Amino acid sequence: MYQNKTTYFTFIFLFFSMVLVSQTEIESNIQALFKKSLTEGKSYEWLDHLSNKIGGRLSGSLNSQRAIEWSKNELENLGLDKVYLQPVMVPKWIRGTFEYANIETSPGNTINVPVCALGGSISTPLGGLRANVIEVMSFDELSKKKNEVKGKIVFFNRPMREDLVNTFEAYSAAVNQRVQGAEIAARFGAVGVIIRSLNLKLDDQPHTGNMSYGTLPLSKRIPAASISTNGAELLSSMLSLNKNLKFYLKQNCKNLPDVKSYNVIGEIKGSKYPDEIMVVGAHIDSWDIGDGAHDDGAGVVQSMEVPRLLEKINYKPKRTLRVVLFINEENGQRGAIKYSEESKNNKENHVFAIESDAGGFTPRGFSIDSNEEKFKIIQNWSTFFKPYFIHYFEKGRSGADISFLKNENNVMVGFKPDSQRYFEYHHSENDVFSSINKRELELGSASLASLIYLVDYFKL
Amino acid sequence: MYQNKTTYFTFIFLFFSMVLVSQTEIESNIQALFKKSLTEGKSYEWLDHLSNKIGGRLSGSLNSQRAIEWSKNELENLGLDKVYLQPVMVPKWIRGTFEYANIETSPGNTINVPVCALGGSISTPLGGLRANVIEVMSFDELSKKKNEVKGKIVFFNRPMREDLVNTFEAYSAAVNQRVQGAEIAARFGAVGVIIRSLNLKLDDQPHTGNMSYGTLPLSKRIPAASISTNGAELLSSMLSLNKNLKFYLKQNCKNLPDVKSYNVIGEIKGSKYPDEIMVVGAHIDSWDIGDGAHDDGAGVVQSMEVPRLLEKINYKPKRTLRVVLFINEENGQRGAIKYSEESKNNKENHVFAIESDAGGFTPRGFSIDSNEEKFKIIQNWSTFFKPYFIHYFEKGRSGADISFLKNENNVMVGFKPDSQRYFEYHHSENDVFSSINKRELELGSASLASLIYLVDYFKL
Repeated sequence: MYQNKTTYFTFIFLFFSMVLVSQTEIESNIQALFKKSLTEGKSYEWLDHLSNKIGGRLSGSLNSQRAIEWSKNELENLGLDKVYLQPVMVPKWIRGTFEYANIETSPGNTINVPVCALGGSISTPLGGLRANVIEVMSFDELSKKKNEVKGKIVFFNRPMREDLVNTFEAYSAAVNQRVQGAEIAARFGAVGVIIRSLNLKLDDQPHTGNMSYGTLPLSKRIPAASISTNGAELLSSMLSLNKNLKFYLKQNCKNLPDVKSYNVIGEIKGSKYPDEIMVVGAHIDSWDIGDGAHDDGAGVVQSMEVPRLLEKINYKPKRTLRVVLFINEENGQRGAIKYSEESKNNKENHVFAIESDAGGFTPRGFSIDSNEEKFKIIQNWSTFFKPYFIHYFEKGRSGADISFLKNENNVMVGFKPDSQRYFEYHHSENDVFSSINKRELELGSASLASLIYLVDYFKL
Repeated sequence: MYQNKTTYFTFIFLFFSMVLVSQTEIESNIQALFKKSLTEGKSYEWLDHLSNKIGGRLSGSLNSQRAIEWSKNELENLGLDKVYLQPVMVPKWIRGTFEYANIETSPGNTINVPVCALGGSISTPLGGLRANVIEVMSFDELSKKKNEVKGKIVFFNRPMREDLVNTFEAYSAAVNQRVQGAEIAARFGAVGVIIRSLNLKLDDQPHTGNMSYGTLPLSKRIPAASISTNGAELLSSMLSLNKNLKFYLKQNCKNLPDVKSYNVIGEIKGSKYPDEIMVVGAHIDSWDIGDGAHDDGAGVVQSMEVPRLLEKINYKPKRTLRVVLFINEENGQRGAIKYSEESKNNKENHVFAIESDAGGFTPRGFSIDSNEEKFKIIQNWSTFFKPYFIHYFEKGRSGADISFLKNENNVMVGFKPDSQRYFEYHHSENDVFSSINKRELELGSASLASLIYLVDYFKL
């Protein structure tokens, strides 16, 4: 009995020692990931190149091809086991050579307002479009006023809600105007739509973004443009003075046939479970105005940084780690669809994926899409992130590109940086490298690397 | 028995109903505070005025007097029960009319570098100061090299540590160079000191801040200036090429006799416990370069916003609420000392104080200086802040100005916004209104108001 008791206590002692040692090892590895990112990180330098040497990179553009080649090359320089391009056909839309609008308050009296075409929109007639305006806040309101719509430009002016602390909720509650506005207004006989920019700040930058004509035949499509928030306020107040004012819009954007493009994939083969795949990803395309520093240059360089940081702390993943830079998130998600199709064809097992596509701001945490059991496991890891002021571990949606990989067993995570400033930059000329803070960006890279490390270290 | 049981259950039911009702009432009041701040807030407009119409407001300056009068007036406009000025003598230091420095790499070859005088420093001789340079990273290193110091300019070049996630820790670990550098170097026979700016970013802005000569007699004092981080890097690399280069510094700053100034105090008398005082405060003075938008204009307008927001949701404090705008935090803390002295003379009971002096960034939480029991109470309130992504509730230091009010029973809290960007602006020409994000500032005002509301609602 005495002997047994000793054995028992020895066992207990060893067990807890091991747990403690592991705990310390994990904490010090995560600390090292943050330290390396903040002191020897490459994210910022990479993003400088992607933003300033390449720039805006809409799907199908020459710049998108340059970004694909550059990122492939940089991943190769990291000495990953495998770096390759995955071909996929993507839509090609071009903005054209002019975008112009004014408010004609009375014949001959015009005020210019800043506009930009929405991605996917058709052009106006060559001489521009000149029509009366009907202002609405919602599709419901439009529907009630459907008899007044014919021959007019519909002005969707519902602002993002300032009172929502999570600005992505405010975006979700307003974005249908941009995506479906043209289709719905066209069905009521409108000749064009003007959308208030999805921006919480009052300023002079129009914000672009994707729109869709749904099932509308080519002959029924109408041009769609975004107006800056200040422009929207001005137009609204002018309309309250004179309902019969005219709005003039001229743009020559164009949809071209699909072209070939690529997802960029870099891989470290898992040392122990090579068939279990962990993805860290972002989208390599961006809008054509601004240089896409926050959306999603930040996510691209943070994802590229993950294998580099793990290597810096001499950690070799047991599972296969893939960096996936998806093409065409902004206007089609063809890259994400292609990646998930290929993954199904190859019967690949994606156990985990994390996406960074919410800007290069201070990390706040993770939005976790998984079953209850796995959610609890990840939530328990929050203690490891406390020293870095990362507290948000909640159930929620992951990311637009990785969501195609979701199944019943795996875990999809959306990286959540602070959201307050994002929509000032998003899809506008404000989204440039100078709006990136080096430390905030680097803390994001370390957050992604740390979560990947924990997923690989433990069994999820 | 049955009767008793019914009574018992009725009691239990009522008790929990009350708890639930209170819970809901609290949650909805806090929600209303955030909503009012984000949609009808005055913080941003006030800060625009304080930054752009008044500007930098060093203690004893005309601008500081303008800021005092303006904030008193604005508090009066809020219809508080009492608004008054509390007189206090403050130091008066003036920057003078020129600040200039260059590195003379060889006779006749000079490179200009951006410098600014440290607050409290004496001037150089009229023709400037020209001397060899000795670069050190610490007082220890200086002490070891003390025989080489005589007649030279000591260049303190220890950077802020990039790897510390809380940038205030990095600041604390480097600030002794600025505060004590001149005194210590002078004792070893130096003729001047140049301090690397306390800035985590490499740029061209010198950052000022307070310095002290300690007990050094007037005749032994030496001029002290700050050099931009890029300038510091340049000087260091030039020194590594040529130890005998000369550094030239010219500044004509000056210490003048103390002048009369004021703390600004606004008060709502408590409806139930008027003798229990809650303070929300910040400092009305700032450095003279930049316009002090983050340090501490943000804290000033956030503090002023607290009674306004409480009034907006029709909440009347049971305890006395005081907005205190302290003068002279930056170079003497005379305002804070005076306030606490007067409070002792009047046998006032300060049950709670919160200070906002860490920039107008996204709120992260609170640093709490109290006994264990009260700390636990406040920590339990963290659930009320979760919807606003405010998670940090830890024991720690409160704030420079309110710390004089600390006693065994009361609670002092430091408001903690995100710290990543703060030291890019702090004490430099970068600290201007355009670096303020409206929503981040407003979330801060609501955070202060919510904590004050909870303190008043519950018994602390």
